[in-house]
Amino acid sequence: MKFALTILLVLNTVFSMSVLAGQQGQEDGYRLWLKYDLIRDKEQRQAYAKQLSQLSIIGESPTLSVIKNEFELALPRLLGKPIEVSLHDQRSSTLLITKIDQKIIDQYQLDDDINQSIDGLSNEGFIIKTIAIANKPQILITANTDIGLLYGSYHFIKLLQTSQNITALNIKQSPKVDIRMLNHWDDLDRHTERGYAGESIWDWHKLPEYKSQRYVDYARANASIGLNGTAINNVNANALILTDAWLSKVESLADTFRPYGIKVYLSIKFSSPQQIGGLATSDPLNSDVQQWWQNKAKEIYQKIPDFGGFLVKANSEGQPGPGDYNRSHAQGANMLAKALSPFGGKVIWRAFVYSHEDKTERSLQAYNEFVPLDGRFNDNVSIQVKNGPIDFQPREPFSPLFGAMPKTPLAMEFQITQEYLGFSTHLAYLAPLYEEVLDTDTLVNGKGSTVAQVIDGSLHNNTFSVMAGVANIGNDRNWTGHIFGQANWYAYGRLAWDHQLSSAEIAQEWVKMTLTKKPQAVDSIVNLMMGSREHIVNYMTPLGLHHLMATGHHYGPGPWVDNLSRADWNPVYYHRADEQGIGIDRTSSGTKGISQYAPAWQKLFRNPKTTPVELLLWFHHVPWDYQMPSGEILWTELVNHYYEGAQAVTVMEQQWLTLEHEIDANQFSQVKMALAIQVKEANWWRDACVLYFQEFSKRPIPHGLAKPTKTLEQFKSLSFPYAPGQG
Amino acid sequence: MKFALTILLVLNTVFSMSVLAGQQGQEDGYRLWLKYDLIRDKEQRQAYAKQLSQLSIIGESPTLSVIKNEFELALPRLLGKPIEVSLHDQRSSTLLITKIDQKIIDQYQLDDDINQSIDGLSNEGFIIKTIAIANKPQILITANTDIGLLYGSYHFIKLLQTSQNITALNIKQSPKVDIRMLNHWDDLDRHTERGYAGESIWDWHKLPEYKSQRYVDYARANASIGLNGTAINNVNANALILTDAWLSKVESLADTFRPYGIKVYLSIKFSSPQQIGGLATSDPLNSDVQQWWQNKAKEIYQKIPDFGGFLVKANSEGQPGPGDYNRSHAQGANMLAKALSPFGGKVIWRAFVYSHEDKTERSLQAYNEFVPLDGRFNDNVSIQVKNGPIDFQPREPFSPLFGAMPKTPLAMEFQITQEYLGFSTHLAYLAPLYEEVLDTDTLVNGKGSTVAQVIDGSLHNNTFSVMAGVANIGNDRNWTGHIFGQANWYAYGRLAWDHQLSSAEIAQEWVKMTLTKKPQAVDSIVNLMMGSREHIVNYMTPLGLHHLMATGHHYGPGPWVDNLSRADWNPVYYHRADEQGIGIDRTSSGTKGISQYAPAWQKLFRNPKTTPVELLLWFHHVPWDYQMPSGEILWTELVNHYYEGAQAVTVMEQQWLTLEHEIDANQFSQVKMALAIQVKEANWWRDACVLYFQEFSKRPIPHGLAKPTKTLEQFKSLSFPYAPGQG
Repeated sequence: MKFALTILLVLNTVFSMSVLAGQQGQEDGYRLWLKYDLIRDKEQRQAYAKQLSQLSIIGESPTLSVIKNEFELALPRLLGKPIEVSLHDQRSSTLLITKIDQKIIDQYQLDDDINQSIDGLSNEGFIIKTIAIANKPQILITANTDIGLLYGSYHFIKLLQTSQNITALNIKQSPKVDIRMLNHWDDLDRHTERGYAGESIWDWHKLPEYKSQRYVDYARANASIGLNGTAINNVNANALILTDAWLSKVESLADTFRPYGIKVYLSIKFSSPQQIGGLATSDPLNSDVQQWWQNKAKEIYQKIPDFGGFLVKANSEGQPGPGDYNRSHAQGANMLAKALSPFGGKVIWRAFVYSHEDKTERSLQAYNEFVPLDGRFNDNVSIQVKNGPIDFQPREPFSPLFGAMPKTPLAMEFQITQEYLGFSTHLAYLAPLYEEVLDTDTLVNGKGSTVAQVIDGSLHNNTFSVMAGVANIGNDRNWTGHIFGQANWYAYGRLAWDHQLSSAEIAQEWVKMTLTKKPQAVDSIVNLMMGSREHIVNYMTPLGLHHLMATGHHYGPGPWVDNLSRADWNPVYYHRADEQGIGIDRTSSGTKGISQYAPAWQKLFRNPKTTPVELLLWFHHVPWDYQMPSGEILWTELVNHYYEGAQAVTVMEQQWLTLEHEIDANQFSQVKMALAIQVKEANWWRDACVLYFQEFSKRPIPHGLAKPTKTLEQFKSLSFPYAPGQG
Repeated sequence: MKFALTILLVLNTVFSMSVLAGQQGQEDGYRLWLKYDLIRDKEQRQAYAKQLSQLSIIGESPTLSVIKNEFELALPRLLGKPIEVSLHDQRSSTLLITKIDQKIIDQYQLDDDINQSIDGLSNEGFIIKTIAIANKPQILITANTDIGLLYGSYHFIKLLQTSQNITALNIKQSPKVDIRMLNHWDDLDRHTERGYAGESIWDWHKLPEYKSQRYVDYARANASIGLNGTAINNVNANALILTDAWLSKVESLADTFRPYGIKVYLSIKFSSPQQIGGLATSDPLNSDVQQWWQNKAKEIYQKIPDFGGFLVKANSEGQPGPGDYNRSHAQGANMLAKALSPFGGKVIWRAFVYSHEDKTERSLQAYNEFVPLDGRFNDNVSIQVKNGPIDFQPREPFSPLFGAMPKTPLAMEFQITQEYLGFSTHLAYLAPLYEEVLDTDTLVNGKGSTVAQVIDGSLHNNTFSVMAGVANIGNDRNWTGHIFGQANWYAYGRLAWDHQLSSAEIAQEWVKMTLTKKPQAVDSIVNLMMGSREHIVNYMTPLGLHHLMATGHHYGPGPWVDNLSRADWNPVYYHRADEQGIGIDRTSSGTKGISQYAPAWQKLFRNPKTTPVELLLWFHHVPWDYQMPSGEILWTELVNHYYEGAQAVTVMEQQWLTLEHEIDANQFSQVKMALAIQVKEANWWRDACVLYFQEFSKRPIPHGLAKPTKTLEQFKSLSFPYAPGQG
């Protein structure tokens, strides 16, 4: 009878599942990389099951409960059998999760092994080690803190998800960067600036009472890749976020995230003292203003004792800031820093500034403004710098600020959401972009001064370190709109934890956990991912071109746009195409931008011949008939890049179609539909840009390439008033 | 080996499910009432399985494929075993689905039985009948059309879902109303006016290529309750919807909906000829304008051969219309009707008009404008009338237009989305509201002239009939934000199909399919649902009060608002509270509104003593010390209603808490969180309204009732700039 009931329950569940994941019985993407589907390899599954027959978690805390829940969810599903989880150290336990103490150190000989020495293990780090106790192998997950145990637990589960051998583990990890955060550009009204996956996941209206399950699953996903911070509202901030009603909503989210080791940060409006505080000024040197912020900090910490701090966009694109009172960014940041300091909070101050009045070329302004302030920021301030000097383009050189402010912790700001890389319908794996930037050597202290070393604080011994990624998360069922957007969230988190990981190995991990473990299919998908970003560079902005997108929504090409109120908002400001050639001269004969880089880089960037080809038009205005290393003239090379980029998307689409029976039908179909859009839009970018630049080059489209079927005027006439994500 | 694999697959699935439905293994609400979970009663399940061992579907069409898919999804899951579905009439089949032909009529003796006679079976109707063939029982589902078969199939599946006996079926149904539609107030930018369940389900930017699975599941849900039309964009229409780019998106949706028998309708902007057509006028008597609409209709029907027609809001709340050219609504509607007529399209023209210039009290204006036009509309025009004379208030009397335009098909417009009934956090089962309206006797032709008979065309022999419901559907995972919002979608559809159904029996069906089949829990939940709307009337607008909500977003109370640019947008216009009393006099001494009703109603409404108590203040300005039938004076009665309403929500919350182990944990928790919000907001409504009206009554809050803990000024100071769903 009991057996019959079990079978029925099981059968019921079989058929339930087929409907739960979209009515057609397929994967809907909500589970991200935490799917925990049964390990199909029977031998491996049985081996794991044997090694994990009894699990003990020692202690009691909300975070330990999270660990217990996660193992109770993951193990039975991965292994196809129930696993006992005990809260006491069972003699029979084969996996032990416990904080470090002397008994553990002795028992597991943690200090016998330099690699596994607890020395240097950070508060968030973990150790996973196998030893034989009485000839019986036992796996230990240990750490200095509960959060370290949580990270170790997710790491261990990933070993199972990716079919790693767990017979002789000897792993020690600490994150290389202290604060690893997401930035949500949430506008408090469910709109997300540059969000392409539905609306914001924060349902502010129903908070604080109504806590969506999604908030929990968001925290799980972040914790599983080591993210420990989230700035939940737009840097173009709304002062309301600091009112009592909104802080109660923030508190509710912070309470949800806390057991997962995730601190909440808020983007603040610098003029809040006036807008919601009733003061006549927001001058950072005014004592009432200073007091207002100190009171506000106290109020926040009463609600949220582990509040992370403030993220600030000031005197940038119309936002208020200390400059409104002729105060420096340092004076503004330090005023906030002083308010947060008693509670351990940080100020993360963005370097993305460029002024309407300043006639210096836009890419130079952040450096000019911030470098002179180096050494003048309080020690709980970090300056958050976008990876390139302009704005998250498909390719930019690294920002010259990296390495130029040795006395100041510099935070990296990457964009995960694809504002300039095809929204949520273009397949663009961004880890190669992140990796390219992090691995670039700034050469400021000679060779071996990589951007990553600037960010993690090791180059200049900074007091703390930060990495931020502008989130691509929305309330679409699969979180990111495009399934491959999940890979960017994942890869960003992994690189924030360890910037030495390669984008290819991260892709491997993600594909195995998300799509398939079949080796050939994994290779095929990873291969497709690894090339994807370069294809976009090619069909949008090859050879160092940048900022060619349409106005406002940034959807589609608009290289012809020349009528915006600010010169540096117009694409023509950046490509400077004329009858002679194309590209912006940032050498000493032009904007002098290269002077901001280390001398060794200046030497390379000075000369078109020694400038990396992929950045040629970033630094030089180059004649149309300039001889490229390939042997082609610039015009032909440029057009070839556009055609190659678009063609590569068609090839991606063909490759994807071969995977139909390798992965879940719904995942297959979603990507297929997105690729159809990407093919269409890649051709649109190609044709619109080539036709437009042809007006200057006055040269034919190279022989053998199909001519665009629409006219430039047709492209110019297109209008998309409701393209998503507008600012 | 094979057995082992099966077990593993099964186990895998067991654990998959727990994550698919929200990471905690619970029902996420996406499946609506089509859950098809295993029937727990073993005896019944086995009986069904025996009766349904072999299913045959005869024929081939997209709709028949839908039927096949639905049975293949539903039966194995409900019955816990695979069921064979054949596309040929198997001798062994126990359930046969086939269109009516002579052979079927003879074999099933359809004409022997008056009840089952095919005579009078409409194109969308169906017959489900059991006969014994060679002593073997066989069930037939038959109809004149594939769509009829689809409706019959869903009806049959519902019999299983709700544990009905299927041994001797003899069912014949035809819908009582021809066009049963949803109106989506989608703004083309993912915003939905008065939408409280996330953003619009139409992801326009990704259409036409990207067809979300949700579009299919939307169609399934609608077809399962008999809805056959959807107006997919806001009646406050954007002219862009008729441009080529947008029509391609609409076509993509129409293609998806077609197999489910759902036609697409579009809300159009009357000034489209100017806005997107380049004409200098949109005057309906201008021949260029007429030609433009005729061309546009042709263009639409080339893309969408079964296009339903236009829904029009004209000369209302700022929308353009024929009145801009001194033409009548009939002239405007007929111009469009003529354009659609060659293709069989309809014009559904809204009667919701009230003018800034017209000083007649707002509730009278629709009648005044439209009744004189009766008989002047083309025969493919229907006039869509909101259920009450104002605007979807918690309670209104029926609109006096019902019954007053015998020569014109009148469409009912209900609001399913809870603009005035607590958004998506108040539990309000609306079927009793719909039922109350439909069952009301207009008395225009003497007794037995119900609103339902006006709508279904039977009272005045109209050529076609329409019912519309303003959708409460968004991209929240559970579609409607509040799980009980699903019940309103469901009940609306059921009543559009058959207005004779009772709201209680519909609630029973819905609860059994959605929440639980345990009899005591079903009773408890149905009981809670049945009272829920009246509680809202009590804590928001008791005794005939109306339009007391805050401005713009309509969130929360704002009875004090008196500063809006139009007099008839202000709550004070409607409640007219002063030191003498409260309520608006719509008798001959006041606005004369009652004159629009049939004489028998006028007689009742004329006198406060014969006016139904629940509408007292709708028709009369009543002194504070007026003696109510209860024996209390009006002030006391009014306050009592407010307190009873709020108290009833607390009781609902307590009742809900007793269901913790009766239903799925996630469904339980979502409703619990929403009820916590409802309790808070019911108290807010009560306290704000009572304190405000007390300023006029100058009487104490009756003895024994707790005094509000906030002041009126505190309530007045509240502001909610980002409340959802704003227009």
